[in-house]
Amino acid sequence: MDFFFYPDGITVIGATDNPLKGGFHILNNILIGYKGRVYPVNPKYDSISGLKCYPDIKSIPGTFDLAIYFIPARFLPDTIEQCAQKKVKGIIIESAGFAEVGQEGRKLQEECLALAKKYNIRLWGPNCMGLMDSHSRHVFSFMYGDYWKDLMEPGDVSLIVQSGLLSAGFLMMILQRGGMGISKVCSIGNKCDVNEIDLLEYLINDPSTDVIGLYVESIVDGRKFIDLARSTHKPIVILKGGRSAYGAKAAISHTASMAGDYAIISSAFKQAGVTTVFDANELTDFLKGFSKIHASRNDGGTAIITFSGSGGIITADFLNDFGLSLAELSENTINAIKEVFPSWMDPSNPVDIWPAIEQNGFEKVYSKAIDALLHDQNVDSLIVHIFNYRLEKSYLSELASLKDELGKPVVIWLVGIGKGLGVFRRELEDSGLPVFTEIGRCVSVLAAIKTHYAKRGSRPLEEATKSPYGKKYCCLD
Amino acid sequence: MDFFFYPDGITVIGATDNPLKGGFHILNNILIGYKGRVYPVNPKYDSISGLKCYPDIKSIPGTFDLAIYFIPARFLPDTIEQCAQKKVKGIIIESAGFAEVGQEGRKLQEECLALAKKYNIRLWGPNCMGLMDSHSRHVFSFMYGDYWKDLMEPGDVSLIVQSGLLSAGFLMMILQRGGMGISKVCSIGNKCDVNEIDLLEYLINDPSTDVIGLYVESIVDGRKFIDLARSTHKPIVILKGGRSAYGAKAAISHTASMAGDYAIISSAFKQAGVTTVFDANELTDFLKGFSKIHASRNDGGTAIITFSGSGGIITADFLNDFGLSLAELSENTINAIKEVFPSWMDPSNPVDIWPAIEQNGFEKVYSKAIDALLHDQNVDSLIVHIFNYRLEKSYLSELASLKDELGKPVVIWLVGIGKGLGVFRRELEDSGLPVFTEIGRCVSVLAAIKTHYAKRGSRPLEEATKSPYGKKYCCLD
Repeated sequence: MDFFFYPDGITVIGATDNPLKGGFHILNNILIGYKGRVYPVNPKYDSISGLKCYPDIKSIPGTFDLAIYFIPARFLPDTIEQCAQKKVKGIIIESAGFAEVGQEGRKLQEECLALAKKYNIRLWGPNCMGLMDSHSRHVFSFMYGDYWKDLMEPGDVSLIVQSGLLSAGFLMMILQRGGMGISKVCSIGNKCDVNEIDLLEYLINDPSTDVIGLYVESIVDGRKFIDLARSTHKPIVILKGGRSAYGAKAAISHTASMAGDYAIISSAFKQAGVTTVFDANELTDFLKGFSKIHASRNDGGTAIITFSGSGGIITADFLNDFGLSLAELSENTINAIKEVFPSWMDPSNPVDIWPAIEQNGFEKVYSKAIDALLHDQNVDSLIVHIFNYRLEKSYLSELASLKDELGKPVVIWLVGIGKGLGVFRRELEDSGLPVFTEIGRCVSVLAAIKTHYAKRGSRPLEEATKSPYGKKYCCLD
Repeated sequence: MDFFFYPDGITVIGATDNPLKGGFHILNNILIGYKGRVYPVNPKYDSISGLKCYPDIKSIPGTFDLAIYFIPARFLPDTIEQCAQKKVKGIIIESAGFAEVGQEGRKLQEECLALAKKYNIRLWGPNCMGLMDSHSRHVFSFMYGDYWKDLMEPGDVSLIVQSGLLSAGFLMMILQRGGMGISKVCSIGNKCDVNEIDLLEYLINDPSTDVIGLYVESIVDGRKFIDLARSTHKPIVILKGGRSAYGAKAAISHTASMAGDYAIISSAFKQAGVTTVFDANELTDFLKGFSKIHASRNDGGTAIITFSGSGGIITADFLNDFGLSLAELSENTINAIKEVFPSWMDPSNPVDIWPAIEQNGFEKVYSKAIDALLHDQNVDSLIVHIFNYRLEKSYLSELASLKDELGKPVVIWLVGIGKGLGVFRRELEDSGLPVFTEIGRCVSVLAAIKTHYAKRGSRPLEEATKSPYGKKYCCLD
């Protein structure tokens, strides 16, 4: 599959200089990051974006591993024939109009697949947005280049998606918001040949991928998927579209997928240690959590630090919902926290620090309580509630390192008012601490993390913990 | 209870000119909005904030309905005695140090209650943040005045809470974010006398309250609560703290509440048509939904307009989870939408308008699809997904009015990038359309709304629909 991600030469079938068309963006995205040979094909142009343009594939003088196809569906068989002549290894078909539009399109798709198999050409798509890789800055997709080129931060989370929402819109949201770095995004559309199984296997072996997220509407080989999931320590989080009869019907006209029986699928996911989610933002939240947390002990309970009695109680209720336990604090911890508490109040878990903050200021109280709790042997994980306070960046880095050293996950619930909130959120996440805006999400992510590491063991820390985006990975260019 | 909200004269026991103390903020909040007589009490001052200050209650020359207490707990019995001499009707006790701190505090609280009953004085609190009313701008709480005074928009949502989080932090977040207007907020703390039952009854009869939200850690009289909930068409949304053994234990040290068996409580809520939620942001999201949606038909299915195939599928799956049905579109609707669709694509529900947008622009496609769907007799509710598009304010107002006229709820899932997103979110909500950031939340709120109006019938529309904050209510000052 390497020739899809790091091809030796690319042709773009349907390149154009009209910025309203996808063929424009495909070509220009390639030119932003790709350093190899690029051959635009379009009989209407002599040159595009400073490159010589060819009327057809056979006229191209050089060789190329990869063709990207963005012209009407009906021309695909001829394109495959021409690509075979040029010893092309793979074609990314981003055009729609295949199996997802009905019987005729399905027939065309099947014919093309048979033809490609004959010539040993792998097909990616059709009806997809191709791929991107942040480390090499290879973007083979029709998404707008203006959006991604200044935002793309290499990271350790890779995605396999049957969805433009997740390969374009949400991707942009993740890039703009920060919080996690992205490695590869694979938009597989109708997945007539290259599918989630191929890519899961590829990403499991990919050194620049540590966490794998999927949005798929069907699983082509459940047994293989489960075996792959079991074979890796990398966390896999999946959002399965078409869980219901309503969704399954819609999936047929979206990506021609047969959704299957979700009860069976989800029980297999569970056995294989795959984390399941149900919503789009939920998927990105879980991936962020796994990206920042590389290990978890499972020999104690969860401690809660809160600025609000009710916040602590709501969190404690969620711990119970998600099968986590509330830590019994040790004597030492209680005594340490007492030093910053008012005399009339005894620390207990959830640790409500509001009265202590009023007396001693928030930095002293937060650091004292966090330190005592993280070093308590009865505590194996920590949820910290923060309202509008700002903690020093250096302290946040220390805390993030401490969580890694001790193997105790720390997740943050951050709420508040004012413009500084977004900045502080970013500082927390850049330090390596995942932030969520709902209490329930803090707990569901923590529960998934604890479950995963209990089954699979920690992921290697290496350099990843020193950088919010795991920049240990060298770029290929 | 009117003397708590609209007292004829107030004394503040523990007024001070030190802005680091609650007594400063209590006094200054009163002076921002309250037009009646105010008597600060503190033996250390001759005057505070331009008002004559009294050494004790009995020295005050005038009369007053209400005393606000913010000095140490141990002085309360004497204060009650002095208040009785002055024919005070109610005392709001905002100090802590009563039943929530243990046996001694509980004994003191019980003694005070007995004393107050003897003199026919109602006690509010202790260990609470008092109350606020946006319409009269009466704020009898120690929260910082700088936060609320420019943000407070009168509205139709009232809250009864045992929580500083919800009576201060979240309240500020709601006021800053907009999206709904607040009527009364009642922070009841240990609720030794005035409790959620008293206030629920009061708010059910309050003309400036249309929607009631609660965060409580116990229900003092379940039977009465259920009877009250059954008696009103006003939606009631409750977040119950202490659903689990963990949470219940924490509730004892927070507000001295005995949480009770949640299985029994929640089944009673269900029977009484009370909407239950589990998270803090979830509570405000549900209240916003009810505040903006006054009616719902229940004779069809839900239509989905989406810019993304996967977004539509995820939504359809959630409809199934929440017991809603996906509308079967009528022939007329399909034909109308076809006018803006590409020829190769047949409209179906979920209605994926992305290809149509590429061809005809988003304003034309959104308005065509929304209009056709809302007028389809098989459609009784609509979920609209929007990514980064901006629709004209005038169109949004029309749409909001149409939803009210037809009695068909419309909820928006808004995602995207860039700074304009928050502005557009605000425009949508100011027009009367509730916006959520998670697909699942759109569906859970819609399901709650449909369930409520199926049982209770619509709420009167009157002028409320013409203003985002329901400014039909006159202010008292």
